[in-house]
Amino acid sequence: MIQRRKTRMVNVGGVGIGGDAPVALQSMCTTKTHDVDATVRQINQLAEAGADIVRIAVPHHEDAQAIPEIRKQSPVPLVADIHFSHLLALEAIEAGVDKLRLNPGNIRDPNKIREVVRAARDRMIPIRVGANAGSLDTARYGHPTADAIVQSALDEVHILEDEGFHDIVISLKSFEVPVTIEAYRKMSELVDYPLHLGITEAGLPWEGTIRSCVGIGTLLALGIGDTIRMSLTADPVEEIKAGLEMLRVLDLRQGGITIVACPSCGRADIDLHATAQAVKARLSHIKTKKPLRVAVMGCVVNGPGEARMADVGLAGGGGVGLIFAGGESLNKVPEADMVDELVKHVERVVAEQEED
Amino acid sequence: MIQRRKTRMVNVGGVGIGGDAPVALQSMCTTKTHDVDATVRQINQLAEAGADIVRIAVPHHEDAQAIPEIRKQSPVPLVADIHFSHLLALEAIEAGVDKLRLNPGNIRDPNKIREVVRAARDRMIPIRVGANAGSLDTARYGHPTADAIVQSALDEVHILEDEGFHDIVISLKSFEVPVTIEAYRKMSELVDYPLHLGITEAGLPWEGTIRSCVGIGTLLALGIGDTIRMSLTADPVEEIKAGLEMLRVLDLRQGGITIVACPSCGRADIDLHATAQAVKARLSHIKTKKPLRVAVMGCVVNGPGEARMADVGLAGGGGVGLIFAGGESLNKVPEADMVDELVKHVERVVAEQEED
Repeated sequence: MIQRRKTRMVNVGGVGIGGDAPVALQSMCTTKTHDVDATVRQINQLAEAGADIVRIAVPHHEDAQAIPEIRKQSPVPLVADIHFSHLLALEAIEAGVDKLRLNPGNIRDPNKIREVVRAARDRMIPIRVGANAGSLDTARYGHPTADAIVQSALDEVHILEDEGFHDIVISLKSFEVPVTIEAYRKMSELVDYPLHLGITEAGLPWEGTIRSCVGIGTLLALGIGDTIRMSLTADPVEEIKAGLEMLRVLDLRQGGITIVACPSCGRADIDLHATAQAVKARLSHIKTKKPLRVAVMGCVVNGPGEARMADVGLAGGGGVGLIFAGGESLNKVPEADMVDELVKHVERVVAEQEED
Repeated sequence: MIQRRKTRMVNVGGVGIGGDAPVALQSMCTTKTHDVDATVRQINQLAEAGADIVRIAVPHHEDAQAIPEIRKQSPVPLVADIHFSHLLALEAIEAGVDKLRLNPGNIRDPNKIREVVRAARDRMIPIRVGANAGSLDTARYGHPTADAIVQSALDEVHILEDEGFHDIVISLKSFEVPVTIEAYRKMSELVDYPLHLGITEAGLPWEGTIRSCVGIGTLLALGIGDTIRMSLTADPVEEIKAGLEMLRVLDLRQGGITIVACPSCGRADIDLHATAQAVKARLSHIKTKKPLRVAVMGCVVNGPGEARMADVGLAGGGGVGLIFAGGESLNKVPEADMVDELVKHVERVVAEQEED
């Protein structure tokens, strides 16, 4: 239903960013890249959770040296995060990374930048450039307003374009959500390069999720954004889980179980929080790729309606649970049995879906 | 920075919704309203957490009877949630509630609706009407698309307008975020009544927060929405905390401590998650009304920049922590002491702010 803005597509080791490709989900390893085993283990965890692309930090020569082995073992394309050294960028390209995250402004010397861009072009490796409010050259661009961030990123883009390089992804990160939204909206009017969305340094899981969902979610809802990374001060697997849920909420990803549950409310006649949590825990083993909606309701106002609209639903109250599936009321069971009964029907419906 | 859509203002017991009033934050009690002590206790908890308005369920006569005593003890205006009985609505108005949440369609009889609307007008009590996808009259409106939800709500609005009643707030709730966004965007073009935002049955805290922040956050970022309720299957205090954080993220509320913290990242040289959590815990006693930004960074790329931009900041790495305040680097302490040092400076800055 979201009309996505049309961008040119870049190819990151077989995963498209932009064009008609689905919004790609990224995270970044917290391991030292030179620790190959730890890095591969974390890449696998991220891929398993749903990451399409994983970024690794390459601050030192030994990290670049580890790339070939990591690349061989990784199930997903890799992005090398390079900041100051053009030699590390060249090494990473040579080592087989699928994309670079680079700040040409940090490399400074035009000849060195040219060398990196040419090597990336020869290997057909996209480069993400972009501004980050925290590292903006304020002497040149002033206070990190949306316009300053956009201009700084455009200047980096122009350095690459001057070399005839167009496999570009742009990011415009800030901690400030209104500034970030404004910056991406402006940039999306100016260029057709795919955009990498993120709210930088968003913080611990609770506040970071709120900040990222408002910022990234708004842009995605407006059709802006081709790849996202949710920044949380947490295990990066949490970034992928939250990012995936955000994409599902916007129908930008399909599949998996969605639990619809009543809010806290004085109308509820069962302990909804405990019931919904029990249902969630009891369904966590189901890894279906097909979309399945499960409703847990405790209200005579919206309950039966929502339960009926779900693939499988429970409307509890008055000591009993009504079970619904496929829009039909199936049976009525005592409250003590309603979670068991709901789970049984979910498992049945999933099994039937798998047979289709 | 967000340009809010201009709406007419209604007055809910001294709290404005719409017009130039700040976006009002609501939640709903989970208590049985006839249990006065439990209800007042929860209202106090919600008000303490930041609720501007609290809704209570009034499904039975004994609940309506409890309203006068609750109203007397409540520090915030109260909304009575009425669904089927016009007599309960009349009782609640008589008992002194500050607003009604009503579905005229459920009351059906035009004479009974007229009676309620006239009583509300005489007492100058606003009424929230609106559609909820889960209880939409699908025989009449069809599948709950954005247009169906908007039309259903407009029909309720017209019932009130026909009585010359205009103290109206409108909600258009659905579990589907794209549908909800589309419905509110359409409605905001059609009427100037203030809008109550919510994503219904959003679910358990983790997924419900993601769903609500994307849905409500997008609308608020577009300037739409005059009051919000975040629906979580949780203690309603969690709804208020998350809703308040969402408003702060969009600069629709100011004040309080905001922690900026690095994401998980292979560049980090300290355990950022543990450090940021320790800082959050150590600062939780500070209840400042003034905005204060605290940065916890572990990165030489964005760290010092962000730490410098914060009111008080820490950039850790290499066994030491650099402490910043007011844009200046203050001192360098061993890693083991950096949280203590940061907290000390935050307390100092807060004390200085209080003196101003």
